[in-house]
Amino acid sequence: MFDPVEKLKEYVRQASVSADPQFKAGMLGAQNFVTGLLGEMGFAVEVVPTALHPVIVAKRGDNPQWPHVIIYGHYDVQPPDPLDKWATPPFEPVIKGERIYGRGTADNKGPLMVHIAAVARLLEKNPNLPLRLTFVVEGEEEIGSKNFKTFLLANKEKLRADFVYMSDNGLLSPDRMVITVGLRGMMAFDVELTGPASDLHSGMHGGVLMNPLQALAELCASLHTADGRVNIPGFYDAVVEPEPWEREQLLEAGLDVKTYQAFLGIKEFHTPPGYTPFEAIRFLPTLEFNGFSGGYQGEGTKTVIPSKARGKITCRLVPNQTPDAIKETVFAAVRARCPQGVTMTITEQHHATPYVVIPPDRSNTPKNQSPALARCFRAVDQAATEVWGKPPLYLREGGSVGLIADLKQVLGLDAVMLGLFLPEDNLHAPNESFHLGVMKKGIETSERVLTELAKG
Amino acid sequence: MFDPVEKLKEYVRQASVSADPQFKAGMLGAQNFVTGLLGEMGFAVEVVPTALHPVIVAKRGDNPQWPHVIIYGHYDVQPPDPLDKWATPPFEPVIKGERIYGRGTADNKGPLMVHIAAVARLLEKNPNLPLRLTFVVEGEEEIGSKNFKTFLLANKEKLRADFVYMSDNGLLSPDRMVITVGLRGMMAFDVELTGPASDLHSGMHGGVLMNPLQALAELCASLHTADGRVNIPGFYDAVVEPEPWEREQLLEAGLDVKTYQAFLGIKEFHTPPGYTPFEAIRFLPTLEFNGFSGGYQGEGTKTVIPSKARGKITCRLVPNQTPDAIKETVFAAVRARCPQGVTMTITEQHHATPYVVIPPDRSNTPKNQSPALARCFRAVDQAATEVWGKPPLYLREGGSVGLIADLKQVLGLDAVMLGLFLPEDNLHAPNESFHLGVMKKGIETSERVLTELAKG
Repeated sequence: MFDPVEKLKEYVRQASVSADPQFKAGMLGAQNFVTGLLGEMGFAVEVVPTALHPVIVAKRGDNPQWPHVIIYGHYDVQPPDPLDKWATPPFEPVIKGERIYGRGTADNKGPLMVHIAAVARLLEKNPNLPLRLTFVVEGEEEIGSKNFKTFLLANKEKLRADFVYMSDNGLLSPDRMVITVGLRGMMAFDVELTGPASDLHSGMHGGVLMNPLQALAELCASLHTADGRVNIPGFYDAVVEPEPWEREQLLEAGLDVKTYQAFLGIKEFHTPPGYTPFEAIRFLPTLEFNGFSGGYQGEGTKTVIPSKARGKITCRLVPNQTPDAIKETVFAAVRARCPQGVTMTITEQHHATPYVVIPPDRSNTPKNQSPALARCFRAVDQAATEVWGKPPLYLREGGSVGLIADLKQVLGLDAVMLGLFLPEDNLHAPNESFHLGVMKKGIETSERVLTELAKG
Repeated sequence: MFDPVEKLKEYVRQASVSADPQFKAGMLGAQNFVTGLLGEMGFAVEVVPTALHPVIVAKRGDNPQWPHVIIYGHYDVQPPDPLDKWATPPFEPVIKGERIYGRGTADNKGPLMVHIAAVARLLEKNPNLPLRLTFVVEGEEEIGSKNFKTFLLANKEKLRADFVYMSDNGLLSPDRMVITVGLRGMMAFDVELTGPASDLHSGMHGGVLMNPLQALAELCASLHTADGRVNIPGFYDAVVEPEPWEREQLLEAGLDVKTYQAFLGIKEFHTPPGYTPFEAIRFLPTLEFNGFSGGYQGEGTKTVIPSKARGKITCRLVPNQTPDAIKETVFAAVRARCPQGVTMTITEQHHATPYVVIPPDRSNTPKNQSPALARCFRAVDQAATEVWGKPPLYLREGGSVGLIADLKQVLGLDAVMLGLFLPEDNLHAPNESFHLGVMKKGIETSERVLTELAKG
């Protein structure tokens, strides 16, 4: 009998940080874990090399009459730092109460394990399940799926399918399923400001030149208005307002502002006017600072004027913004605001196109949808209602999964996204965890969905 | 025969970084080197413990009729980072051309070695030199001489002397001696801004709260005016304009703005109006950012909103500003400008009172000066003129040596400061070095000065 929790523990022990070359062994461990597990389940497994971390492709079912579902996941995880904030070591999974703790438990090892477990159970019952299944598990999601589009283009034929089925998205509480129908896009970049040719003593030379840290502060301080909007002309031009049913679904979700504020641990919100915090996260673009560095950061004092200061910046995008257009708008403003006395280098990081899919029977302006996709949405709605006792919510999410747009663009496939991680799961942060009750209900739901799909 | 360059090499090999507990062995090595060397020269050496790094006190001469000169130095050095910018390892001294490279060669191991060598030569010639000499070599100068004032208070009797003689200051070119007659003071502090209780995923939560990095940028951007002045009401209130002879000495120094700009490697100066860069460094106070940190700083992207952002700030002070008054003025402004949505913690770092001493026969408004101090200034003027071929320049310096104010306040002693490091010596920066020609002339000058002082 397939024990998904034990399997997940084994999977989390593989320290698969894609951003840092020091974790090479963990990346290989995670690959071997996934290929081994799917191989045991009877899948034909292929490890497809890319320019960096390979993609695992695992297939079963070869009757072209059967529906073909691609199940997407990623085996890489975020860096674990700051390590001193973890209550238990990030790569030694521990169960406490109804949660399992460890880097990657929720993003994305636990949710992928949900679908692997559902498939394993179905195949135990019926080895001849009339369904073509292809797992596509990549290793670069946390660094922007840099090589995934190239992989898709090169393997287009092999990946002809009806739709993508996956869970790299969230739900709001452990008692109601959320189907994600939209994701924000991204345009990430680094700014480096250079002042003097080398670090200088701030006593001997302080007071006559522009300090690159001051220039960074002045530049970054110029990028927002006091009311929390992005202060760059044209930034909001392409933004499409959400449809009324989307705001209604959010209201039905019954989210509580005070609870959210307490969860974040903030004194007050800082949200652009006209949007609740829950709306702002889903319907508005942002410009966020993800890291500043420059000068001395250790203990005590070092009286230095650094040669360079660096800022890491990401913009989140919403329909119909595009990374290319926003890049042009933002880079032009950033360049124009480079303080005198320093030089600027902008380094592009990854991009993701924002995504929306309208579930059947929702929109006043429905789009053409493949019957297979509509059938999947209806199967999910029914299974989730049965397992969780309430109909699922259809919500957009604030995060970015750029590959979703790539799947749509390259393969022409939409994605049915079952939310499986909770706001409390601490994704990308210390003490990441995954809720075992959600895991159990997720497996039941997925098993029912796949059973329904196998009916053709 | 005492070989000062070989001795200096041995001294520099001791990695005596006072700011970082990892360099404990190097601190001990430097102490042992100094105590061993002075002991061999016939000094009675005492290692006086403090709350952190001990002070070395070494005495010779016990006839109370003889003049008593305290020679000050420090055996600690700045941290060597960024290590990758060093052409040779920081603690493996190397001679290339007319320079010796290594951390601490110029600040302060080389200059202290100049006076040790001068004393060694004099004592070789005349073991009964009629001069009381007390070396006071501390280990916390680079971390603000935190315990030095306490040491002075506790050892006041032992340190009754005529004046302090020392070299922890600079000259402008290797062919003319500079006597430092003023130093800027300092008021250093760290600001920590806290937003959310823990790091957050910038996709899931970005756009609804004040990012601590943005708050840091807004706060820091508010602290200067566009013309390069500090933008805090009252900051300049106590500043005393320099006397005309001081500006004249600077003009006589013949400093070239373009040469200085090329040395700094900057596109343009950013100096408050009404001051040349050379004047601004010496006569104006500053507020400089020495380090920013917060969020992800590694390779690639981490889409995080950090819980905390930190800035390290130092103000340089000029007469008659005081650290306490400036602290009150600056902290009040910084607190008042703390952006909404974050909380602020200010941590005080070290302080130093600015210092000026007027050499005899210079000022239109001369101050009472001890005959011994005036005699020393005249001896230095004569020796420097003979050895360097030109009369010395009397200049203030932009750096801070807070202990100078402590020596004045606790022991009532002024300091005669012979400049021995050059702008090119890269103090506090990678590839620090010391000019061997300056070293040689420094030893000759110091030997003549001490010979003259011994005449009583």
